[in-house]
Amino acid sequence: MSKVKGSRAERELFHMLWNEGHAVVRSAGSGSTTKPAPDLLTSNGFKTMAIECKSIKGKKKYFDHTEILQLNLFANTFGAEAWLGLRFDNVGWFFIESKHIVKSKGESLLLTLDYMRKKGLTFDELIGKYEQKKLNL
Amino acid sequence: MSKVKGSRAERELFHMLWNEGHAVVRSAGSGSTTKPAPDLLTSNGFKTMAIECKSIKGKKKYFDHTEILQLNLFANTFGAEAWLGLRFDNVGWFFIESKHIVKSKGESLLLTLDYMRKKGLTFDELIGKYEQKKLNL
Repeated sequence: MSKVKGSRAERELFHMLWNEGHAVVRSAGSGSTTKPAPDLLTSNGFKTMAIECKSIKGKKKYFDHTEILQLNLFANTFGAEAWLGLRFDNVGWFFIESKHIVKSKGESLLLTLDYMRKKGLTFDELIGKYEQKKLNL
Repeated sequence: MSKVKGSRAERELFHMLWNEGHAVVRSAGSGSTTKPAPDLLTSNGFKTMAIECKSIKGKKKYFDHTEILQLNLFANTFGAEAWLGLRFDNVGWFFIESKHIVKSKGESLLLTLDYMRKKGLTFDELIGKYEQKKLNL
């Protein structure tokens, strides 16, 4: 994923969240510090989420375990839920909470569009617009 | 205040907070969006603060009311406390919660070193290291 495209997806989600009444900051930290920093940090006063965003051209994406551990570290310290937001080209956004990701032995983790359709949440489900049927996996 | 100096103060506070176990993000938003964005957003899971930082050469600083209204708007939506952090050269940091700032009729608000020494909190008081004697003004 190019940096520009990732940043564009991040901005899109930023505005989607604001439009639904969730305050959001985009983090400036990822490059300039060794401290963990999620791409977006958002809350409406009830649900607080640290979100790592990815823009995906095909139908699958590998994640480094380190990236997810860093996200968890930040979220646990802040008191936020840790989420991955995947934007598939020509399909849209799916979200999964990091604690629902099945650990694997390797160094990276594979998330596919099929898997996200089955186990992930849509944006409306994420923000609780519709009943979150899929929250308890 | 120069942008560079403001940014340096912001980074200093960023590290001070992490060192005390508070997760912090620096916001990337201030320039690229019309949405309100505090300089820093921090929490240890109990106390969540949106902080606007200023680096001050002399003994006083004017704030735009708009800036404080934007800070309040963000903090209220996110569910955070709204704080101003003032770093006076050769003196150090003082903090005041925006709700404790006395409103004035003009377009800007004056905060002086004397006032902050009397009414503000030190960093240790802010993070609850010492009894927060001055919290109830």
